[in-house]
Amino acid sequence: MAESNAYDLAGSPPKMGKPAMVELIGRKKRGGELSAEELNWLCREYVGGRIPDYQVAAWLMAVCWRSMTERETLALTRALVASGASLDWRHLPRPPVDKHSTGGVGDKTSLVLVPLVAAAGLPCVKMSGRGLGHTGGTLDKLESIPGLRVELSLEQVQAQVTRIGCAIVGQSPQLVPADRLLYALRDVTATVDCLPLIAASVMSKKLAAGASSIVLDVKHGSGGLIETIEQARELALRMVEIGRGAGRRVRAVLSSMSEPLGRAIGNALEVREAIETVQGAGPADLWQLTLELGSQLLLMSGEVQGASEAAERLEEARASGAAARKLAALIEAQGGDPRVVEEPDRLPAAPVVLPLEAPAEWSGWLGPLDARTAADAALQLGAGRRAKEDEIDPAVGIRLLKKTGEVIRGGEPLLEIHARSTAAAVAAADMLRHGLRLTDRPITPAPVEHEVMDVDPR
Amino acid sequence: MAESNAYDLAGSPPKMGKPAMVELIGRKKRGGELSAEELNWLCREYVGGRIPDYQVAAWLMAVCWRSMTERETLALTRALVASGASLDWRHLPRPPVDKHSTGGVGDKTSLVLVPLVAAAGLPCVKMSGRGLGHTGGTLDKLESIPGLRVELSLEQVQAQVTRIGCAIVGQSPQLVPADRLLYALRDVTATVDCLPLIAASVMSKKLAAGASSIVLDVKHGSGGLIETIEQARELALRMVEIGRGAGRRVRAVLSSMSEPLGRAIGNALEVREAIETVQGAGPADLWQLTLELGSQLLLMSGEVQGASEAAERLEEARASGAAARKLAALIEAQGGDPRVVEEPDRLPAAPVVLPLEAPAEWSGWLGPLDARTAADAALQLGAGRRAKEDEIDPAVGIRLLKKTGEVIRGGEPLLEIHARSTAAAVAAADMLRHGLRLTDRPITPAPVEHEVMDVDPR
Repeated sequence: MAESNAYDLAGSPPKMGKPAMVELIGRKKRGGELSAEELNWLCREYVGGRIPDYQVAAWLMAVCWRSMTERETLALTRALVASGASLDWRHLPRPPVDKHSTGGVGDKTSLVLVPLVAAAGLPCVKMSGRGLGHTGGTLDKLESIPGLRVELSLEQVQAQVTRIGCAIVGQSPQLVPADRLLYALRDVTATVDCLPLIAASVMSKKLAAGASSIVLDVKHGSGGLIETIEQARELALRMVEIGRGAGRRVRAVLSSMSEPLGRAIGNALEVREAIETVQGAGPADLWQLTLELGSQLLLMSGEVQGASEAAERLEEARASGAAARKLAALIEAQGGDPRVVEEPDRLPAAPVVLPLEAPAEWSGWLGPLDARTAADAALQLGAGRRAKEDEIDPAVGIRLLKKTGEVIRGGEPLLEIHARSTAAAVAAADMLRHGLRLTDRPITPAPVEHEVMDVDPR
Repeated sequence: MAESNAYDLAGSPPKMGKPAMVELIGRKKRGGELSAEELNWLCREYVGGRIPDYQVAAWLMAVCWRSMTERETLALTRALVASGASLDWRHLPRPPVDKHSTGGVGDKTSLVLVPLVAAAGLPCVKMSGRGLGHTGGTLDKLESIPGLRVELSLEQVQAQVTRIGCAIVGQSPQLVPADRLLYALRDVTATVDCLPLIAASVMSKKLAAGASSIVLDVKHGSGGLIETIEQARELALRMVEIGRGAGRRVRAVLSSMSEPLGRAIGNALEVREAIETVQGAGPADLWQLTLELGSQLLLMSGEVQGASEAAERLEEARASGAAARKLAALIEAQGGDPRVVEEPDRLPAAPVVLPLEAPAEWSGWLGPLDARTAADAALQLGAGRRAKEDEIDPAVGIRLLKKTGEVIRGGEPLLEIHARSTAAAVAAADMLRHGLRLTDRPITPAPVEHEVMDVDPR
């Protein structure tokens, strides 16, 4: 329609009121941004029971769709932190450090890293989650140590870290209650795998726990939360940005989770492998990753001048026995039997140990064992949870006797299945056969490569 | 990693069980398709209270994100229909027709079309909604007729249509209960404006009401549910596809809703204009649209050979007075006072009528009045609802004295505001000034163009 020199009789059009939460959902749905004030309101009202689950669920899915800006992700993280208590460590001579892993199959790194770093002189406070689905939980692993408790009050955590320099405990219900509510809702609305929501959830807990330097172990591959390295980089970047925005030192280490880490999968089996590693033995991949994460913590804390000095400090803490003593101290402080460090046979053991042998006709080099298949088999044995209410069997799991690139001869045992019954072992063996591959040419294990992110690469 | 001649020890990887609704949400979130069986399950379990609102809300937002395939939209529509009763008209000699409008400002077309088509010999059953937001509801308009009832039982609707050939009534709660639940949830989760959900919702009600030929009035522009003609085409196409998939004859007429339809906005004012139009007067744009919609119904029903014969039949039904008598019969059958057809002053009238005049310095041609601004002013006067529980004032509204392209001289009245109080009238006048524009060159009203869709253009 032709219209020239059109003009209004008045200024801008009038605005009409709208129900607040519908407005916020609609804006995010259209790709808009929510302000810090709005996200604070959302978290506060949701925790107060004044916004129904269905509106928050719709907003969560809209966030999965449209993502969040850096500013918005930081604002959500702060809103989550503001919903509960925060830990204060100003009484310590050195500010504590913290570590988070996105989780992986056979990932017992925290059990090695926390006492190692504490033995090297940095207080380390680690609040962990329980395992659900195919990746194990550090708490479940620790609880396979007879008597050990992980549910400590904030006061107990503070006292323990002040006294012995480290703790590995459950997430306190006093910290970030909004995250707990949101996470439970995400779990039942298929909105878990959304990078800004993952980043805000992880970082809110790290910020509330009060560490000044935080290292993030972001895994990619079939056995991790995240499949591709691109997505892992994106998540790492978002978390580093949040930490920087909140005034913390944060670095992310990207590592592969296409094969299980180390040789043990299953709770007591993994504790045993962690003990071996703290004592100077253990698988090379686990130790290399632990060294990388620990070095970043020492570097960020200004304890060392460079990477080689950091590695030396950590090697020394292990070789001197200080790390193993720190692990025993941690176990004892949390009510566990510290003798497991010297006598790992005190850990629960499975009644059935079934070796899985290479077929007679096999002769060649072992290919990588798919981490997801290994996890599914361990879950089938009872080492993990399908649903929150499932009980975990601490003794069961898998021990890899051969790893990628080793020469295999027909009939040789490839792995051990630790099971509650022969039937369970046979079922797990059937699953594991799907993940095992042989190659007819030599195969070199992928080098352990860690990509460290501490600046904005954009 | 180099890997040659890799082979499995067994076949495909094992699958793991997952909670059903989370699985469906997740699949839609990833852009997948739900089967007819799954959508039936979803609707049945939701109506039965066995799926919580928050999971359905997350699924709805995922549908807004990923849309639905044609097959999926038809399956959802059928699942909605299957959740309740359906009307059966096999006892009628001619199968009934039906009409749906996506809603617009000043849209009183149904009040003209239903008696007109019935007078032309086609039984017409129209189940309507109430107005919410900026577009009025046919039921609210009808209820401004003293005594008239719109809440009839299915038996009463069937008896009335069998006896007089038409009815305009409220949506029966026995039809498509799943749609009612879903719509209420969409309303509070910002998931209303999603084409496949709109299409499934509209068509489920049309299918359950049992008409064999259905005409859809799909409006685009600031005063409609849909802004752009592209989106209107997409919605029309989806609805026509559903109708075809369900074995009904369906055509869609696209019409502009950037300006109000006709000259009256507000319930009793619109009824009065509809009466004038049925009697042979009334605004041209309203009559042209009614003729187009009615012609499509006659054509689809096989009552006429071509468009000109259809128009003749409808013109004749109006000129003979048959349409006006049918409107009086409809009003009487539903308990209203049929004398309003001959004596429209029996309709409720507002105590204050304030003319809005052109500023003294104005001289030129009137530009189009923005439909949304007109609707907001009518809402402000009390002609519509902001929230479901709001009461409507049947008497208030706006009467346009001048329309697009007319020559304006300073001081001339442009429109009349019918209000409950002078203060309300003045407030509405302030809003309307924003929507009025003058141009300094002649302006021709956009020709009334109707685009008819009845085949798949892809």
